[in-house]
Amino acid sequence: MEARLALSARCTDGVTSTAAFFDWLAERRLRHAQRTERIPFDALDQWGFDPDTGDLGHTTGRFFSVQGLRVRSDFGAVPEWSQPIISQPEVGILGIAVREIDGVLHFLMQAKSEPGNVNGVQLSPTVQATRSNYTRVHGGSPVPYLDAFRTPEPGRVLADVLQSEQGSWFLRKRNRNMVVEVGPELRAGDDFCWLTLGQLNALLRCEDLVNMDARTVLSCLPDWDRVDGPGSAEHTGQEIRCWLTDRRVVHEVVTERLPLRAVPGWHRTADAITHDEGRFFSIVAVRVGSRSREVPSWTQPLLRPHGQGIAALLVKRVGGVLHALMHARVEPGFVDTVELGPTVQCTPGNHAHLAAADQPPLLDLVRGTDRASLLFDTVLSEEGGRFDHARCRYMIISVDGRDPVEESAGMRWLSLSELEDLLKSSGQLNVQARTLVAALRAVR
Amino acid sequence: MEARLALSARCTDGVTSTAAFFDWLAERRLRHAQRTERIPFDALDQWGFDPDTGDLGHTTGRFFSVQGLRVRSDFGAVPEWSQPIISQPEVGILGIAVREIDGVLHFLMQAKSEPGNVNGVQLSPTVQATRSNYTRVHGGSPVPYLDAFRTPEPGRVLADVLQSEQGSWFLRKRNRNMVVEVGPELRAGDDFCWLTLGQLNALLRCEDLVNMDARTVLSCLPDWDRVDGPGSAEHTGQEIRCWLTDRRVVHEVVTERLPLRAVPGWHRTADAITHDEGRFFSIVAVRVGSRSREVPSWTQPLLRPHGQGIAALLVKRVGGVLHALMHARVEPGFVDTVELGPTVQCTPGNHAHLAAADQPPLLDLVRGTDRASLLFDTVLSEEGGRFDHARCRYMIISVDGRDPVEESAGMRWLSLSELEDLLKSSGQLNVQARTLVAALRAVR
Repeated sequence: MEARLALSARCTDGVTSTAAFFDWLAERRLRHAQRTERIPFDALDQWGFDPDTGDLGHTTGRFFSVQGLRVRSDFGAVPEWSQPIISQPEVGILGIAVREIDGVLHFLMQAKSEPGNVNGVQLSPTVQATRSNYTRVHGGSPVPYLDAFRTPEPGRVLADVLQSEQGSWFLRKRNRNMVVEVGPELRAGDDFCWLTLGQLNALLRCEDLVNMDARTVLSCLPDWDRVDGPGSAEHTGQEIRCWLTDRRVVHEVVTERLPLRAVPGWHRTADAITHDEGRFFSIVAVRVGSRSREVPSWTQPLLRPHGQGIAALLVKRVGGVLHALMHARVEPGFVDTVELGPTVQCTPGNHAHLAAADQPPLLDLVRGTDRASLLFDTVLSEEGGRFDHARCRYMIISVDGRDPVEESAGMRWLSLSELEDLLKSSGQLNVQARTLVAALRAVR
Repeated sequence: MEARLALSARCTDGVTSTAAFFDWLAERRLRHAQRTERIPFDALDQWGFDPDTGDLGHTTGRFFSVQGLRVRSDFGAVPEWSQPIISQPEVGILGIAVREIDGVLHFLMQAKSEPGNVNGVQLSPTVQATRSNYTRVHGGSPVPYLDAFRTPEPGRVLADVLQSEQGSWFLRKRNRNMVVEVGPELRAGDDFCWLTLGQLNALLRCEDLVNMDARTVLSCLPDWDRVDGPGSAEHTGQEIRCWLTDRRVVHEVVTERLPLRAVPGWHRTADAITHDEGRFFSIVAVRVGSRSREVPSWTQPLLRPHGQGIAALLVKRVGGVLHALMHARVEPGFVDTVELGPTVQCTPGNHAHLAAADQPPLLDLVRGTDRASLLFDTVLSEEGGRFDHARCRYMIISVDGRDPVEESAGMRWLSLSELEDLLKSSGQLNVQARTLVAALRAVR
């Protein structure tokens, strides 16, 4: 399978030429043009505030809800805070179908609009469905291609692992990331397009195109170009496991559910729940009109971040082997205490009021990087079904030829192969780090 | 390291002859004879019931507390119940020091008494310390050998992984399981003894001798006798990962904290919190007198199980490669939904009132096993610092030469190597399965 993936990665064109892909995408964007408008909370249909707790939820209790969370943590500069957070206990499926066409593996990608996307349609996995979607709680149409993932043929599963999503915005949310090989009977519908891995790797460089769900699934693919053997990494696997265990034990994180109405430092107006100093994000409500969705028009809450994020990975080559500097991060919504994140991950505006010593480590280095060291630098969108205009600048920065960047207690240089091994297990790399692994494999 | 472990496993005697070991153990048992007596709750010193919740805790808020939990789950015959449960958010260290003596690795084991042990002293890891112990909250003496585990030399760590404990009795409890190689400067104190892996493997067959903490640490040792190569297992690693992901998604488990005073179906008397039909366990209080503990005499609550448990593993050889039938289990206290348990794990008395169809799968087969098929059959104790007289019959049953035992949706045959690989990660095998892996490696 690794050789077949490697072949697909070398193919920069496939049954769909990249030119034809962009034509198709433009056509889909026209067809699925969505109208998303802000509305006051009391115009939400089937969503409302619980009279006791003030939690914002759907009348059926399904989909997701917005609750309150109090956090005590020794990670970062702020030891204690409270915040709204999205609770979505259902595990959804993010699945990409792959099929051999003309001897080359192609990936079935979907043109999908989401209400929070800055540009309407982005490129998503073949299937991107919450359990409420695929059990059709809202009585919509069936999810295309779902069966390929609910009953995959044994031996044709390339990846199948639960992975976390934004731990600052989601409480213990996880999705099932799957890649499944299918046969020639599976054909692309109008909203779908077969692309090679080489094409996808190129498209990752386009702003706001490959959506978050597609990126995390791609990151879980088996490694197709392992060049390093045992002993070529700076740390052995055992050393990395030991360090990760240590990080999980060292950090004390205590979270406690709060009624949303009782979250200190936040207030609710007619159309937003906002931080008193305007930092972090707001909870807002929107009405969405669309021709393509399972249901014709609907309203829902979204989390709207304030300011664009940065997720930056420092990389270097040691004896030819790519290494990335990973940061063991605490985020309150993680199932386990700690996952590995990028070297730097933050929304700078949220830290602007803090002293210089309390700024995220290495943020200055990242912001001062010269063009020549930037292996990857693209603004990409986060999940448009839950977040409104959530964008993050993803950067991969080579430090080869510069002063060495030393490890701190919370940071270690891992080889790309070690990252790929960790991605076979749940809860080791956070969603931003997974985007950067997908990007790193695309540009190496 | 694998070759050095294999050599130690072949040595059935070491610097301490097994005869000398038993002499030493008898002497330690005399010296550390403990007096544990049941007392009413109101005779507890520094422990009490919270006036609001009825939770049972220590005045400092440290150590552990007994709380209530409501559980809804689609695993097993009972869809919903409430129960008391032990909350101990602190991660402790369970560590065994190993040292080369006369060219052979020896393990430094401790003779340690615990109030709930049926026989006072059992064989424990070098260090068995909660964070409250080693930060000396109760002002006791320092924990011997702790530094070897708090600041281990890089490259001398054989195992370091967080592992769960009884998910029916503990809420999200985990301990750090460590094996660290030390140098000749480390010498055995009076309560400590150097044993080879071969000796430890033999001692696992003695009733109530190698304690739970020692067994789980031993299970996390690297495999020292891997005979099978890739492709020799019934399922590939990818198939097993896919199945485990599926089990974690299929099962819906919802837990909710309850005030201990409001746990339906349980009642509190002056000296016990008990299930109304007398099933499962009681929460009791004891006074402990001892010469050897960090503090001279103390009182504490214990969880006292009703009836002896069974943990049985069916095994077979496929092309010479050992396989075990693992059961994907839901226990409410797991950090993640599902971990792999033994083929059968239950306390039969807790199920006696249920219909035949609702008995644990394969329990009849296990109970009807003939002597000749039993590779391992020993009653061992669970953690005596929290559980009072908690004993379980651990069985390994060969089904070679019998009718094949088929997999169900919740069960898969895994090779021993696959189990050993899973043990490098947290939260994959539950504590009973880990004892059985240690036992299986001892008898294979």
